[in-house]
Amino acid sequence: MTKDELTAFLDREFPQLHIGGQTYFIDEVGPLSARMRMTYHDRHLRPGGTISGPSMMALADLALYAAILAHIGPVALAVTTSLNFNFLRKPEPRDLIGECRLLKLGKRLAVGEVSIFSEGSADVVCHATGTYSIPERR
Amino acid sequence: MTKDELTAFLDREFPQLHIGGQTYFIDEVGPLSARMRMTYHDRHLRPGGTISGPSMMALADLALYAAILAHIGPVALAVTTSLNFNFLRKPEPRDLIGECRLLKLGKRLAVGEVSIFSEGSADVVCHATGTYSIPERR
Amino acid sequence: MTKDELTAFLDREFPQLHIGGQTYFIDEVGPLSARMRMTYHDRHLRPGGTISGPSMMALADLALYAAILAHIGPVALAVTTSLNFNFLRKPEPRDLIGECRLLKLGKRLAVGEVSIFSEGSADVVCHATGTYSIPERR
Amino acid sequence: MTKDELTAFLDREFPQLHIGGQTYFIDEVGPLSARMRMTYHDRHLRPGGTISGPSMMALADLALYAAILAHIGPVALAVTTSLNFNFLRKPEPRDLIGECRLLKLGKRLAVGEVSIFSEGSADVVCHATGTYSIPERR
Repeated sequence: MTKDELTAFLDREFPQLHIGGQTYFIDEVGPLSARMRMTYHDRHLRPGGTISGPSMMALADLALYAAILAHIGPVALAVTTSLNFNFLRKPEPRDLIGECRLLKLGKRLAVGEVSIFSEGSADVVCHATGTYSIPERR
Repeated sequence: MTKDELTAFLDREFPQLHIGGQTYFIDEVGPLSARMRMTYHDRHLRPGGTISGPSMMALADLALYAAILAHIGPVALAVTTSLNFNFLRKPEPRDLIGECRLLKLGKRLAVGEVSIFSEGSADVVCHATGTYSIPERR
Repeated sequence: MTKDELTAFLDREFPQLHIGGQTYFIDEVGPLSARMRMTYHDRHLRPGGTISGPSMMALADLALYAAILAHIGPVALAVTTSLNFNFLRKPEPRDLIGECRLLKLGKRLAVGEVSIFSEGSADVVCHATGTYSIPERR
Repeated sequence: MTKDELTAFLDREFPQLHIGGQTYFIDEVGPLSARMRMTYHDRHLRPGGTISGPSMMALADLALYAAILAHIGPVALAVTTSLNFNFLRKPEPRDLIGECRLLKLGKRLAVGEVSIFSEGSADVVCHATGTYSIPERR
């Protein structure tokens, strides 16, 4: 799937993502990779202007999903089976970028890692690894 | 802190949690434990009536935070350093309960596990472990 | 599989476990659970008389494997796909006990948690969660 | 610490690593990074000529420790607080290389990731992330 096909698929299948205004965007998909953006928005904030952990966890989960679907096609039923997060630094008050790289794309399981950065910074603010279970295809 | 003190503290420090209507509630705090509830709400849904992973991840993170603050007092700056999730079953379309048990409450780090259930069911739908870093107290 | 059948299976399929003298023993298997013991031995030690992390990780992995095989039978090819560990306290210089409880036993994936204790103590020294992939059965 | 200083430190502080013959070697240390090697040896094997999970977990833990000590100096008491592993492919029957990159080196916590490869192959066989707690320095 191309970036535009993926965007259309997510909009159609997961309209709840955009409740309150769209903040998650696919920036790019490539070979075994994807880059998602979460725009800076009040509802992702926590005291002190920092960005909430759950917002970043959603960004990582979506980046993995996008990278997988780009390869296997529009399989709404691919499901997350595990996610692991390390929170490393306080994010800056601006857009966050999630860079996903797939480590394995098997028949039953896909595994990848996601590094989340404040846009324009090289420091990883959150690092994630995750596994999706892929339904059998006939 | 008691359940009422914790509730007042979260309402005051984390008003963003309730944007769109309050759905996270502390049901109970006890010795090294806490129980949080996430009420069933449109914005937590995914296609097919299931409940989104990020909503459950937020519930687990909050349950850990509540269990820790109940012991160490109102320390807004305790921060999550890591979280690990296993998604086990599709949640039922009703309230979710997160049962947190602290495994360690040290001077610098607190570690706990959270089992998330659909209310009234004994099957764990999501299991989490997490670590908070606790600021130095003087 | 009973405890004795499991013990015989592990001895036959994984003789390398016992190189240098047997230190891993199945204490008990039950419904969706297993208890493994690692006896105190020089080769598991680290400076200061503590027990090495990798020894505990092997204990947790084995406890999961035993709990799964007890239910699905002697499937040597069930493979670990992920493991997560939190190291909580310094173990005492004595036997370690790994208590495994399966959280899910599906057709393709089994997920469980393991709490490791120094024998006779109630404090968890290491907590693990893990996933095994189960080969298709015909 | 240089590679030679680190090697001498590990030999002195952790002689148990080499019981049965040395198989873990530091290949290189660099800025926020380290590369460890585990040589192919009978005691790391499992049926079918594959390499055991616990051997790889030990390799990842050591690679993290080496990368941290290279920066903070010979602190035997830095301790692992958490480790997360994804096992991706069956290793080849030859040496394994663990490439560690530190994601954060803070005052209290260091976090890094380790990719393990069969020597000469580009496929990651095991991916790890881990956290060490660093004792206070005066």
